[in-house]
Amino acid sequence: MASHPQKHPLDPLSAAEILQVSSLLKEASPDKSLHFKLISLLEPPKVLLREFLKAERNASGVSGMSGPSLTRRAESLYYHRGTSDLIHVTVNLDSGKLEEVKKVEGHFHAQADIDEILEMREVCLRDEKVKEQVRAFRLPEGMKVVCDTWPYGRDNNTQTPRFVQCYLFAERNHPGSNHYDNPLPFSPIVDMVKKEVIDIVRLPTGSDSSLKPNAVYEPHPAKEYHHELQAQPARTDLKPLVIYQPQGVSFSIDGYLIKWQKWRFRLGFNWREGMVLHDVTYDGRELFHRLSLSEMFVPYGDPRMPYSRKSVFDVGDIGAGVAANNLALGCDCLGVIKYFSFVITNSQGNPVEKPNAICMHEIDDGIGWKHTNSRTGGVSIVRSRVLVLQTIITVGNYEYVFMWHLDQAAGLHYKIQATGILSTAPIDRGVTVPFGTRVNDDVLAPFHQHVFSLRIDPCIDGDNNTFLEEDSVPMPWNDQNPYGVGYVTENRIISTSSPSDSAPNRVHKIINPTSINKSSGAPVSYAIHSPGKQMLLAHPDSWHGRRAKYAFHPFWVTTHRDNELYAAGDYTYQSHPDLTSDLGSWAARRDRTENTDIVVWHSISLTHNPRTEDYPVMPCDTMTVSLKPSGFFDQNPALDVPQSMQKDNGSCLVKNEDLAVAVEGKAREFKL
Amino acid sequence: MASHPQKHPLDPLSAAEILQVSSLLKEASPDKSLHFKLISLLEPPKVLLREFLKAERNASGVSGMSGPSLTRRAESLYYHRGTSDLIHVTVNLDSGKLEEVKKVEGHFHAQADIDEILEMREVCLRDEKVKEQVRAFRLPEGMKVVCDTWPYGRDNNTQTPRFVQCYLFAERNHPGSNHYDNPLPFSPIVDMVKKEVIDIVRLPTGSDSSLKPNAVYEPHPAKEYHHELQAQPARTDLKPLVIYQPQGVSFSIDGYLIKWQKWRFRLGFNWREGMVLHDVTYDGRELFHRLSLSEMFVPYGDPRMPYSRKSVFDVGDIGAGVAANNLALGCDCLGVIKYFSFVITNSQGNPVEKPNAICMHEIDDGIGWKHTNSRTGGVSIVRSRVLVLQTIITVGNYEYVFMWHLDQAAGLHYKIQATGILSTAPIDRGVTVPFGTRVNDDVLAPFHQHVFSLRIDPCIDGDNNTFLEEDSVPMPWNDQNPYGVGYVTENRIISTSSPSDSAPNRVHKIINPTSINKSSGAPVSYAIHSPGKQMLLAHPDSWHGRRAKYAFHPFWVTTHRDNELYAAGDYTYQSHPDLTSDLGSWAARRDRTENTDIVVWHSISLTHNPRTEDYPVMPCDTMTVSLKPSGFFDQNPALDVPQSMQKDNGSCLVKNEDLAVAVEGKAREFKL
Repeated sequence: MASHPQKHPLDPLSAAEILQVSSLLKEASPDKSLHFKLISLLEPPKVLLREFLKAERNASGVSGMSGPSLTRRAESLYYHRGTSDLIHVTVNLDSGKLEEVKKVEGHFHAQADIDEILEMREVCLRDEKVKEQVRAFRLPEGMKVVCDTWPYGRDNNTQTPRFVQCYLFAERNHPGSNHYDNPLPFSPIVDMVKKEVIDIVRLPTGSDSSLKPNAVYEPHPAKEYHHELQAQPARTDLKPLVIYQPQGVSFSIDGYLIKWQKWRFRLGFNWREGMVLHDVTYDGRELFHRLSLSEMFVPYGDPRMPYSRKSVFDVGDIGAGVAANNLALGCDCLGVIKYFSFVITNSQGNPVEKPNAICMHEIDDGIGWKHTNSRTGGVSIVRSRVLVLQTIITVGNYEYVFMWHLDQAAGLHYKIQATGILSTAPIDRGVTVPFGTRVNDDVLAPFHQHVFSLRIDPCIDGDNNTFLEEDSVPMPWNDQNPYGVGYVTENRIISTSSPSDSAPNRVHKIINPTSINKSSGAPVSYAIHSPGKQMLLAHPDSWHGRRAKYAFHPFWVTTHRDNELYAAGDYTYQSHPDLTSDLGSWAARRDRTENTDIVVWHSISLTHNPRTEDYPVMPCDTMTVSLKPSGFFDQNPALDVPQSMQKDNGSCLVKNEDLAVAVEGKAREFKL
Repeated sequence: MASHPQKHPLDPLSAAEILQVSSLLKEASPDKSLHFKLISLLEPPKVLLREFLKAERNASGVSGMSGPSLTRRAESLYYHRGTSDLIHVTVNLDSGKLEEVKKVEGHFHAQADIDEILEMREVCLRDEKVKEQVRAFRLPEGMKVVCDTWPYGRDNNTQTPRFVQCYLFAERNHPGSNHYDNPLPFSPIVDMVKKEVIDIVRLPTGSDSSLKPNAVYEPHPAKEYHHELQAQPARTDLKPLVIYQPQGVSFSIDGYLIKWQKWRFRLGFNWREGMVLHDVTYDGRELFHRLSLSEMFVPYGDPRMPYSRKSVFDVGDIGAGVAANNLALGCDCLGVIKYFSFVITNSQGNPVEKPNAICMHEIDDGIGWKHTNSRTGGVSIVRSRVLVLQTIITVGNYEYVFMWHLDQAAGLHYKIQATGILSTAPIDRGVTVPFGTRVNDDVLAPFHQHVFSLRIDPCIDGDNNTFLEEDSVPMPWNDQNPYGVGYVTENRIISTSSPSDSAPNRVHKIINPTSINKSSGAPVSYAIHSPGKQMLLAHPDSWHGRRAKYAFHPFWVTTHRDNELYAAGDYTYQSHPDLTSDLGSWAARRDRTENTDIVVWHSISLTHNPRTEDYPVMPCDTMTVSLKPSGFFDQNPALDVPQSMQKDNGSCLVKNEDLAVAVEGKAREFKL
């Protein structure tokens, strides 16, 4: 009995489906109170899904319900409330039946959820011993203490209950005040099951680990980011810039199916990974089966307890989908915008809308290609139009912007931007430390890293894919190279699952050895271009290093398995490396990865040694990973983009005599 | 007698000034015919110029003619026509006097000029032996032979006359036809002084150096870039996108002085470097005295004669200013555009306009910074507006887009884009080689590199500057780092002139040790962020390697000297490394470079192993170098950018029921 016949197998769960699951589970455990951690789509097995998607694409209809039907399933994870009993279930949404119920092994913990975080903040701030310490710190009248919770991470080998570590800050009397400007010198630890403060750790504030027992608040000039709190007035010389699309947008949408400029793909979203792209094709040719943010690890470089355990898996411990912003409220993208909304679950098992969690719009990205024929003066030029899919998440102090930029020359670009506020720590007046930057009096912004894992599940002209390193190598100086200027490319196929490192002369490529480019005579390929970055700086034997093995190499290749989606493992909260199945263990299988169904994992690292300019709010820092055809097409795939024409662009000249020129000419031209 | 009292010392030469110089020189040599190579502004000595610019900035007026007056000078380089006698002169434009006349040493050659190139093409194609070889190649009716000239470079130790090497192609019968699709298998060499073909070199077309004496043209399906020559119709689903600035632009201009969003700088332009930025300040603080493209070397990786000498210094051998496009004709930037035109000289000494050689406009560059207060839901967000200064040059087959992007957070970004057409070579049907890509039947696109040299003359809070490498380094695992997670930054000051290499964990910074950031307690600094790239692949002892020493290291620091502007030397055409003063020799002086007036040189390399997708015209390949404050400002310099407001942005929603929505709402909102 297919209860949701209109759904595509990859459509994210609807509110009704989430209710269907939670109701079913509540009915199945009438004697228990369930604390829901997630209710999410369980994607069909890849082998069936690929078959379905191919049939759908080959069928004429856009909605493509012509393929073989696939059972629609959900998964859920929940605690028996007030206990550490964690249950994972699979639900058949078509039959409405529980298919699998599994008690999760006791050493695994579920992610933190928002209801829980809010409750733990309360627990912390209501604790008498915490209140006493706050009083002893002698904050001025009107300053309010707020609490940021951090996953406890791991600092020893034992099985620990679920903890949060709390960092406290004092907020001035304005709803937009930057509380990170006033870090308090102690950190309560809360047991999330018992819901009580079990320890208060005093923070080192000098140049070493020593503690200062009787610290009191010392006032300093505030650094605020909110526009109402600025000492200087805002700039007044920025004129509006409007993106105007008189004929509307160039994309089409059918549910979660999106088509734009020869691209066709499905948009997905879930609590954990946030935005996902499925079944990406260009001009009818298969490129990527699934593209997702697999994990993100943020370890801090301050070596002193308790900062030595300050770290978070933002995807696994929190969820990029859970943390997604409502973009209509202040994303303010320019142009004509399409927003996508999704539904996740709260801890009660009720659907909660994530409104406008992804936005889609077009931008102009400069010149696409150009050539001037110097003999005739004739100019051929096309502009580069780009389709942007954007999601922005707020994880406590930081925001991350995640974007896919699709261009007209068959390139996909994953852009990561870091903005928001630095997580700060107290530091004694005048002291400096080599593992952090003093961004205000008494305020330290410790060094840290953000290591993202981009999961690339390719289908470059089908599933027979191989990952390789291609190096540009000087030829030996000999008879074949008599002037010492020749160089060639050499490639090394990664024939078994393993990591692969970067080098300045290296390009990583995914090829299909069974599909030959008729111009070049070589297998078709997509290249991954990414700036060579510092990998994880924590010691490989440290808890950070062992819990985030993926973060030591920029590339990894494994064979595809349906349940291997998350580079640091399924359960990252206080994860124990010896008990976690993660990218390190999957690669260690040494599976054959040549000419088969592989997954490529790309670790992208931002080593963030804060600048004073990153405070009190950080200008976006951007990193881009590009997936570009490299001998995939027979010629420039943007050759058929129409020439750029002034009549369409409607640009106008600045007149020297009046720089604040009104553009009457354009208004006329477009008959507005 | 100041003949040009209205001119700023950095204003590029006017047509009148060029005529003043050429007339003076012609009068001074009445018995000679002069072949002019350049007439260009000779910038004042830096020490005087800095004084002038500071006084100008400190004065209240915008035009700032209040500083000490500076003598305005021009330089010229010319041949006595038909000889190898090369003369360099200095002219005092104020007094109208020749100040210095110097015969250039005989081993130096001036750059090629356009008049000369056109003449050499004629010489080549009219040569009877060349015509005979063309006939023997048996081109079909209607195909016309065209000639691309390349600097001869150097392949032996002797002093050679000025040569060009010619590569021939057959063009189909259309003015926009891609002649690179039909490379001919022989290369005439022309003596530029004698104006005659001195040799015809047969090109290897197989997999090795062997020659095929009786090659004849074999037809193959054409790959054309011109839109009139496409087999497939152009895409029809791209809707217009218009940048609309209802209140005009945010910049102001006074001559070549530009102000925008706290930035203030002067725009310069000359035949060689093209666009130059002078005296760049942000919010009244000095950042960069001069920013320019110093050189660009393009060596090919095909080891076989004559390709082993195929290479060009596009800046020194040709001139980025000379090759600048008229951007109004087909640049088609969006928005409200300001164009700048300049004047260079032709070989007769007459002024030739380079109309619209630089364009300036604003773009929206996504989110500037954002934070959502998770406790209140309050969103603070600013968009990032960027000022773009763009010049595009065509050097034969290729085009390069050079842009400065200035952002509101005091970052400058130098963007280089490569587009245009691959320089091709003939290859026998079905043959592949490891140093090139077959992009069509019979057409090889050989591997090559583009190594740019960005000259950065800093004045970070003044002239006391130091260049350093800053590495992020794990702390040893010991009592100070009990969990093995700590890391620190370590820096190495480059205290004497020398190169400096890149590393994944390294940031290069220019600091001012005498100016301390009051928040961080550390010297103020600007960081240079650039992707780690493969440096020159030719052997260091090869002619390519010896002539382009700058191309082996990504960074160099030297002390400032007025006459050291060009990384591969002043005279690059057929340059001999033993006789050339270049960045390698300047760095070898081992001058003290600490806390003094230094110059930083950044070599940026694009290793271009062509893709089939780069043919018949190449989608832009982009590289970005960012100069970003790093502890220069006390806090985020974009803190005072006004919040992004929907009322200014005028964005609108896509309506699901009608994706090609008319945006009446916006038209109303802006009362167009």
